[in-house]
Amino acid sequence: MGLVTISDIRAAADRIQGAAVRTPLLRFDDRLWLKPESLQPVGAFKIRGAYNAMARLTEDVRARGVVAYSSGNHAQAVAYAAKLFGVPAVIVVPDTTPRVKVEATLSHGAEVVQVPMAQREARAAELVAERGATLIPPFDHPDVIAGQGTIGLEVLADLPDVAAVLVPVSGGGLISGVAAAVKALSPGTRVIGVEPELAGDAAESLRAGSLVRWPAADRARTIADGLRAEPSELTFEHMRAHVDDIVTVSEEQIGEAVGVLARRARLVVEPSGAVTVAAHLARPAERTVAVLSGGNLDPEVFARHL
Amino acid sequence: MGLVTISDIRAAADRIQGAAVRTPLLRFDDRLWLKPESLQPVGAFKIRGAYNAMARLTEDVRARGVVAYSSGNHAQAVAYAAKLFGVPAVIVVPDTTPRVKVEATLSHGAEVVQVPMAQREARAAELVAERGATLIPPFDHPDVIAGQGTIGLEVLADLPDVAAVLVPVSGGGLISGVAAAVKALSPGTRVIGVEPELAGDAAESLRAGSLVRWPAADRARTIADGLRAEPSELTFEHMRAHVDDIVTVSEEQIGEAVGVLARRARLVVEPSGAVTVAAHLARPAERTVAVLSGGNLDPEVFARHL
Repeated sequence: MGLVTISDIRAAADRIQGAAVRTPLLRFDDRLWLKPESLQPVGAFKIRGAYNAMARLTEDVRARGVVAYSSGNHAQAVAYAAKLFGVPAVIVVPDTTPRVKVEATLSHGAEVVQVPMAQREARAAELVAERGATLIPPFDHPDVIAGQGTIGLEVLADLPDVAAVLVPVSGGGLISGVAAAVKALSPGTRVIGVEPELAGDAAESLRAGSLVRWPAADRARTIADGLRAEPSELTFEHMRAHVDDIVTVSEEQIGEAVGVLARRARLVVEPSGAVTVAAHLARPAERTVAVLSGGNLDPEVFARHL
Repeated sequence: MGLVTISDIRAAADRIQGAAVRTPLLRFDDRLWLKPESLQPVGAFKIRGAYNAMARLTEDVRARGVVAYSSGNHAQAVAYAAKLFGVPAVIVVPDTTPRVKVEATLSHGAEVVQVPMAQREARAAELVAERGATLIPPFDHPDVIAGQGTIGLEVLADLPDVAAVLVPVSGGGLISGVAAAVKALSPGTRVIGVEPELAGDAAESLRAGSLVRWPAADRARTIADGLRAEPSELTFEHMRAHVDDIVTVSEEQIGEAVGVLARRARLVVEPSGAVTVAAHLARPAERTVAVLSGGNLDPEVFARHL
């Protein structure tokens, strides 16, 4: 299986310029720097991968539109990127999706199709067949991984002697790209994944050396709703090649990190994005960068952690 | 009275590189972009002016230390900049200053002197005389104004055809610098100040063509505690020369803007920093940039506006 290379990631960086924010690296204290991807247009890093994948399509193919199935940050990113390209997007969401998320997607001009949870994938495949549209997967695609990897390029440009980069792990697209970039440019920098204890399947898999599957119901227990997916073969191969370790944090540590980031870094970060800071606070180390993957959370949940 | 020039501001930009964050311009919607100075190390733009003023001192003078009297963002900025330069800082604060603010200042390694409110200025002058230290004023100084003006350079670099820049107005150092930069590089761009209605002295002054003084007790009524100061002759001259208009917003509009910024831009912005967005929401216009001046507020106040 071919891994994403540093030249794939450099090419992605050229493509996404102007579409994704070149986020700053923010100094938090003497040891920690923050990479606030919560400041992206859709509130999450997902725009990098989604936009890169769409930029790689030929104009003809792209004009027939794109499809995604997701109720989370990836759906928003695909809808937003499609708007930038001026092409149609259809987002397939479970019929249990909160109205506010549906409206956010509609606000980017996307069409939203609501189906029972179990039919999401099948309905998306139908739409692809019917319309000749292209499916943009949330993580299991080299172009998506290369787009997320641009974060690694930016971290090294801003802090060349970074000792460790902490990255949230769910499906693994983010850490695959970041690790590919970091290890190509600075092999001595450690790349460490972070998962909730309650969805620690990737940590277990990396230790076992092969993919260990957890039941979806188990992974759904964590408050970090963006970290409930599981790695694919492609992302797991990237992790095996490039990731030094994956650590886990408790639900309490995650909630505490959300509050610390609001009070001390003036950032609204969702639980999934705050796991990296939770890991750092539990075991601080020198010259560490924490990737804050996103900032979309219920205001009431947020207020509870202030 | 000599006004700050574009070359003063360009020189300041070179000096503050590495000390202040080069904040991104964040697209909020089709009309509005945000300049989030809340992401600076001390949570406010003040680091730009304080650092520039200290960089302008000779090494000998700087080594004797700096003094500031303020309990707000400027005090934090002077303490932080002094730490970067490795020189002593004394911050004179009223003895009514909340413990949390005193501790934040101490955490930057500054010495804190608590005196009755009315003695702040006199005590600061004594410290300057006793130690040969230099007073770093919060706004009434060309080097401080030039430092704040670097925000204007960055806005124009990121959005060259910006139609209007909205800037909070208190003592006027921020808008003086930003307006000097913007009008030098893009005379057709409107620079508009924003004040709380309850502290609308600068708006009244600009309309009258001369400084109108409001009682401090009146200015203290607004929730925007960073906007309770009044312009100096120096900053008022800059406003008369470069500022197109100053508008005011209600307390309710300010609170609403704090909530909108948290929910839709994932930023923790203090009421003083959110007045610009409040003004835009009341009367949206094309290609507008809102400067968000800072993000330091009581978590309980913040939670109320989510």
